[in-house]
Amino acid sequence: MAAEEGTAPTRIMVAVNESTLKGYPHASISSRGAFDWTLTKIVRTNTSDFKLLLLHVQVPDEDGFDDVDSIFASPEDFRTVQRRDKTRGLHLLEYFVNHCHEIGVACEAWIKIGDPKEVICHEVNRVQPDFLVVGSRGLGPFQKVFVGTVSEFCVKHADCPVMAIKRHASQTPQDPVDD
Amino acid sequence: MAAEEGTAPTRIMVAVNESTLKGYPHASISSRGAFDWTLTKIVRTNTSDFKLLLLHVQVPDEDGFDDVDSIFASPEDFRTVQRRDKTRGLHLLEYFVNHCHEIGVACEAWIKIGDPKEVICHEVNRVQPDFLVVGSRGLGPFQKVFVGTVSEFCVKHADCPVMAIKRHASQTPQDPVDD
Repeated sequence: MAAEEGTAPTRIMVAVNESTLKGYPHASISSRGAFDWTLTKIVRTNTSDFKLLLLHVQVPDEDGFDDVDSIFASPEDFRTVQRRDKTRGLHLLEYFVNHCHEIGVACEAWIKIGDPKEVICHEVNRVQPDFLVVGSRGLGPFQKVFVGTVSEFCVKHADCPVMAIKRHASQTPQDPVDD
Repeated sequence: MAAEEGTAPTRIMVAVNESTLKGYPHASISSRGAFDWTLTKIVRTNTSDFKLLLLHVQVPDEDGFDDVDSIFASPEDFRTVQRRDKTRGLHLLEYFVNHCHEIGVACEAWIKIGDPKEVICHEVNRVQPDFLVVGSRGLGPFQKVFVGTVSEFCVKHADCPVMAIKRHASQTPQDPVDD
């Protein structure tokens, strides 16, 4: 029943995002928690039997709020903004890829743009991981109404088993939205 | 980040139940699926790093339907029924414990009586596994109204990460309730 040596590795998709408090390139507490949990509880010492698929979904800055103090004088300025956003996402992924490399577990990391919950489920369909791990901020019912939770949506709609990892109580910031 | 050799094993609780179609001692398709999935995708060859906690919750036969043809002539007859029910549950657990033993993964198995979804969440609180794996019959929204799903309840209420494993489409009986 247990897998034989030499069989295909278990492919675990881990969705990661930036800290809402500190911004890029810092990973959110909950995505670092989900990542650490996967390594400590699942991969453990068996690094050759797993492959991590690290997905970061960037939310498009539709209202241009991040760029409110920027000056746009040429088409090149807009390309600079696009490059900067992309670079921020890459630095976020770098953190996770570096850790995988140190431990010796295979990984792939990529960025998509869109609504995180929709894009994660879409990527699950495309990539077909064995399961998905998402961090959860552990919001109460009142906060959920305003913030929504990506993890709940994925548990319902992703086409693979989903593990939602709540943060330790000790890791929860005073306002759980500041993750 | 990855666990060192010699650290405590990852404790995985797997909830198992009998087949609704074939009855005891046969395991339901979905609990065999959840068990096999755990071994193939998580434990793999790393048997010494995991311990399986196998919980079977027996539903009390409150309306005595199973015993409609039995004749009760003495207190001993009632004790016989209790023993028979217990024995049925033990034979179910034997299937899973035997498999663990063959593979060489540590396990503990036990029986509780009550409402499966409530008891599973209660046992999670008591035993504090690293995560819970439950099979899911993949019922449609219409069937759920009547049958309810243990897995959905556990995902919401169990105090640990929960992995709900749906059956393969090929394993689904014509009527998914016949699991």
